[in-house]
Amino acid sequence: MGGVIDGLPSGLPLDLEAIQQLVDLRRPGQSSITTPRNEQDRVEILSGVMDGMTLGTPIGFIIRNQDQRSHDYDQLKDLYRPGHADHTWEMKYGVRDYRGSGRASARETVCRVVGGAFAMQLLKHYGVHIHAWTSSIGPVTLPDTFNPDFNAIYQNDVRTCHQPTADIMRQHIEDIRITGDSCGGAITCVIQNIPAGIGEPVFGKLPAQLAAAMMGINAAKGFEMGDGFSGTLIKGSEHNDLMQNKNGVTSTITNHAGGTHGGISNGNEVLFRVGFKPVSTIAVEQTTINRAGEEISFSATGRHDPCVVPRAVPIVSSMAALVVADLMLKHRTTRL
Amino acid sequence: MGGVIDGLPSGLPLDLEAIQQLVDLRRPGQSSITTPRNEQDRVEILSGVMDGMTLGTPIGFIIRNQDQRSHDYDQLKDLYRPGHADHTWEMKYGVRDYRGSGRASARETVCRVVGGAFAMQLLKHYGVHIHAWTSSIGPVTLPDTFNPDFNAIYQNDVRTCHQPTADIMRQHIEDIRITGDSCGGAITCVIQNIPAGIGEPVFGKLPAQLAAAMMGINAAKGFEMGDGFSGTLIKGSEHNDLMQNKNGVTSTITNHAGGTHGGISNGNEVLFRVGFKPVSTIAVEQTTINRAGEEISFSATGRHDPCVVPRAVPIVSSMAALVVADLMLKHRTTRL
Amino acid sequence: MGGVIDGLPSGLPLDLEAIQQLVDLRRPGQSSITTPRNEQDRVEILSGVMDGMTLGTPIGFIIRNQDQRSHDYDQLKDLYRPGHADHTWEMKYGVRDYRGSGRASARETVCRVVGGAFAMQLLKHYGVHIHAWTSSIGPVTLPDTFNPDFNAIYQNDVRTCHQPTADIMRQHIEDIRITGDSCGGAITCVIQNIPAGIGEPVFGKLPAQLAAAMMGINAAKGFEMGDGFSGTLIKGSEHNDLMQNKNGVTSTITNHAGGTHGGISNGNEVLFRVGFKPVSTIAVEQTTINRAGEEISFSATGRHDPCVVPRAVPIVSSMAALVVADLMLKHRTTRL
Amino acid sequence: MGGVIDGLPSGLPLDLEAIQQLVDLRRPGQSSITTPRNEQDRVEILSGVMDGMTLGTPIGFIIRNQDQRSHDYDQLKDLYRPGHADHTWEMKYGVRDYRGSGRASARETVCRVVGGAFAMQLLKHYGVHIHAWTSSIGPVTLPDTFNPDFNAIYQNDVRTCHQPTADIMRQHIEDIRITGDSCGGAITCVIQNIPAGIGEPVFGKLPAQLAAAMMGINAAKGFEMGDGFSGTLIKGSEHNDLMQNKNGVTSTITNHAGGTHGGISNGNEVLFRVGFKPVSTIAVEQTTINRAGEEISFSATGRHDPCVVPRAVPIVSSMAALVVADLMLKHRTTRL
Repeated sequence: MGGVIDGLPSGLPLDLEAIQQLVDLRRPGQSSITTPRNEQDRVEILSGVMDGMTLGTPIGFIIRNQDQRSHDYDQLKDLYRPGHADHTWEMKYGVRDYRGSGRASARETVCRVVGGAFAMQLLKHYGVHIHAWTSSIGPVTLPDTFNPDFNAIYQNDVRTCHQPTADIMRQHIEDIRITGDSCGGAITCVIQNIPAGIGEPVFGKLPAQLAAAMMGINAAKGFEMGDGFSGTLIKGSEHNDLMQNKNGVTSTITNHAGGTHGGISNGNEVLFRVGFKPVSTIAVEQTTINRAGEEISFSATGRHDPCVVPRAVPIVSSMAALVVADLMLKHRTTRL
Repeated sequence: MGGVIDGLPSGLPLDLEAIQQLVDLRRPGQSSITTPRNEQDRVEILSGVMDGMTLGTPIGFIIRNQDQRSHDYDQLKDLYRPGHADHTWEMKYGVRDYRGSGRASARETVCRVVGGAFAMQLLKHYGVHIHAWTSSIGPVTLPDTFNPDFNAIYQNDVRTCHQPTADIMRQHIEDIRITGDSCGGAITCVIQNIPAGIGEPVFGKLPAQLAAAMMGINAAKGFEMGDGFSGTLIKGSEHNDLMQNKNGVTSTITNHAGGTHGGISNGNEVLFRVGFKPVSTIAVEQTTINRAGEEISFSATGRHDPCVVPRAVPIVSSMAALVVADLMLKHRTTRL
Repeated sequence: MGGVIDGLPSGLPLDLEAIQQLVDLRRPGQSSITTPRNEQDRVEILSGVMDGMTLGTPIGFIIRNQDQRSHDYDQLKDLYRPGHADHTWEMKYGVRDYRGSGRASARETVCRVVGGAFAMQLLKHYGVHIHAWTSSIGPVTLPDTFNPDFNAIYQNDVRTCHQPTADIMRQHIEDIRITGDSCGGAITCVIQNIPAGIGEPVFGKLPAQLAAAMMGINAAKGFEMGDGFSGTLIKGSEHNDLMQNKNGVTSTITNHAGGTHGGISNGNEVLFRVGFKPVSTIAVEQTTINRAGEEISFSATGRHDPCVVPRAVPIVSSMAALVVADLMLKHRTTRL
Repeated sequence: MGGVIDGLPSGLPLDLEAIQQLVDLRRPGQSSITTPRNEQDRVEILSGVMDGMTLGTPIGFIIRNQDQRSHDYDQLKDLYRPGHADHTWEMKYGVRDYRGSGRASARETVCRVVGGAFAMQLLKHYGVHIHAWTSSIGPVTLPDTFNPDFNAIYQNDVRTCHQPTADIMRQHIEDIRITGDSCGGAITCVIQNIPAGIGEPVFGKLPAQLAAAMMGINAAKGFEMGDGFSGTLIKGSEHNDLMQNKNGVTSTITNHAGGTHGGISNGNEVLFRVGFKPVSTIAVEQTTINRAGEEISFSATGRHDPCVVPRAVPIVSSMAALVVADLMLKHRTTRL
């Protein structure tokens, strides 16, 4: 695995340990509710950094796979797993890398986290902070009203910000795991202290860029800003976020919109939610077809997550960081 | 209003009347539930077309505004309307075009429809068809199961595919309109006969591109593919779309995923839903602030839609057409 | 003709008359050594400007053709003119717009000048000035050493900065014109007061971007920075531009390199030269082939320039302005 | 060193040895007229290839530096070498990687050759062949007329296609090397069997793309297509390449234009020339300034090439291959 991060300004002091730590949060094998596949995911930085500071030139990095049991994938060579990209990939390219699903594998998201970790250090420099957490696991949701405890997020296996609900969510995943099945859920993300004016009009709006970033994550199936779909049920007089002037600073009192108006940040927190389908790879036996077109029976025997949501939490915040960093840099060219 | 459509292959015979007709469907002033603002929206094509056929070179077009009463906007010069981009735009650029909201106005979507109309003619040539319809207006939704009648969509004012529900939806908008308030809703879109293999991996997935296209439409607040957020509630064994082989053609039996696996079309219909917030411009009096930072009272007096959803139906299908046309052309470079 | 200028920062006060004036300098019909084709080339700005100031949003513009005698082009429908893009265009698109050569016509360069005129106003705001002039017409060149008089450039028909040579150049073109033939030449361009540090490494170097911009102009066949090809004849100890420190400002004493090192501006003047082939359209009879593959005899009867160089002078400076404006804006994202 | 090659179609059988061989041709230390710095330049391919065939997904690669004596660079930390990018780089980024000049080092061109080697295999599949050779070293040029022997190119140290001239060129470099000075030269490149119709109009013309690719190579200072600057001296009736029809195939009889008309390939050979300045790093003592702004004396003591031209030959053909491969793939989207 590897990638190239281009466009990071020069002169940014880096906390390389913090980058590895964020990558570690995505790593498999950290609790009984994730795959026991054990990858060290050590990030090796190849360029663009000198004396712990960015040079302004591309940052190349690689992560060597270590616990790759390719025989786990031998059974997959000639069949199309249900719910997987095996078939579509082959339709696209005429060939596919069956060893670990190639680029369709969720393994590629480690590079998103590396990129996001760099972007977050840039954002932190400008005072912008991003927090993501699990807001539902299957039918288990957070309470309607509570004070989110951001410090709690990575202290429970499901990565949520409300400890009592964390226990229920964890139990739900355990119960599913024992049956060999899988479940989905949702992640909520907040971007704090993002300045007003970020986002490009028409085709480059902040919600559009965030939506693309999130819907590109494996298993993501839904995206909404602020009140989102539930906001379609209320009236304009209820949904409009009224403005106030507090000591010369204009802000919105409520945040039904999720922090953007006309696709551009309004100074309030940017708030969105991403829905993830249940994991496709399950031990439950299902019918599928092979490359010869024959119907066959299949149940996965490899090591897989019963629920992708907890490990997707750092991925969501990473993708958000990449989007916001890009748009903040782009915004520098806006005014004379 | 105007734009440039680049990348349309040469040699495509055009039905220029069909392009104008799609634009007309977005046009205001067509029924009592849309703004009486009366724009002819005549599309003038400036380049790229000869003898009714594409030349392969950019198609420039303009649409002259006709019914623009600029004094309608005089009151807006110095205030920030609630729920609008007035404030964010000024934060971004330091200046804004208050005459009709500039590029933040939903008026810009006419160009999306022109572009989409051209893209649709390309798709039609390849047998791909796109249908969008209103699937909810405020709390009024289509029945759980029914046969959508695509021919009915543009024969009712709300643009839905089930006539009995159309009447209820229309009444809901009328009731809201009389109070000076507004409502939201959702649009569902299906892309039929799209070949398997369309969409680019990782950052250019079909759902990601569609999400960006839809979330860039004015007032869009949510996007979901297939089962979307409701699919997060079921199990993997229920969500997986099993494959079958019918006369040598591989297809999925169900379509929970919405027609993509791994971000690439799987040969089934591509299906997604877009949620729109209630219109911000309402006659109900609300407080807001002006450029001097003073809190003032504001109620809109201009001509505005009580619900954006019916007029957004051709916009959704247009944006979908642009995305699919782009990705189908891009796919041509995939294999040797 | 028309185009869209995107990315110009908001808040730039515009001198719209100056824009029209630059466009006028490219206009045909201004002297006996240019085509008598008489185009007014009035630029109509459609968007992006309010109260004489940029809004930061795209500036759309159109220029209506007025003196277009389409019957001039009737003879061209079925033949491929020697030295022209008629044949290659048809190979590319399978169809071509024979009415005025479509996009392959030098007529498209009017849009480059409009864009360049806007870019120049941005550069002027930052103190950057661009001057281009004819440095050779056929074998007639400027003296080896002289003080270029930039004010003289647009006061002679050939647009050069040395009045005595201007007369010789003009006579050379006249002599060629009478024979129905054409000649080429070269244009030199200097960018003054460009800050050090402009240009992107590896694939986006300033000389690379300038070369692409210049070699994209109709009839351009050569490009060189500073000493260019003649610099390949001298030794490193002669070519190296030594640096000096004058009152704390570092600069190069000589300028063999043309103002860049490693593809990035070094604070000295950026200096380059563009070579243009003789115009292809001539009254001299030549053999060519038609669409049926038959060899035929052809001599142009329309109105054409005997030498493209004088009218290309504002095009060269316009393209230079577009490149430098882009790279200066891009440079804003380089440092923390 | 490393990079990512994206966009190569799937299903291309690769000759990985041929890729390493092309990289070896650029490698230093191969003769007495190149730097004795000894790099193995082993290309390690990290992704995108399975069973010797492209997967259609990005090809990541790295090349580990081996013979890097960082103390060679210690003297460079605080001074700006004459003719080098040391100063401009620091003006741009505020910081620079003084260890081997970072990305401004000609060492980065190894990645261009890796990319070009892949592109060449794609082109070879389509029958397109690219040959580049040294056409001048300082004042030593090839004879006016001779039959280029492409097989000879890599059998002499200067990489030219005429053995008698090769000896004179080699002696010229040796003579310069002994004095501690350096010299420049030029490379000519021919693209054979490129189909008509390749290149994009206006801003993406084939000569423009080639010019950008070439002027981005370290030390490149001039570019010309076909007759180039010398073509500015002749008349249109001499320069126009007349067309003929031979057995139904249209072609130009002469090739003054260098194989393009209107920026699009015309079916003839594409022919261009690139001029390179003499190498900046010389043992001759010169004055320069250091970071403190003090004038100091400097002469290079590291291992450097007296002439960059021979080693640039595979770089020129590689960059040409990348441009043509891109444009041929892009051309696939041109027609219905």
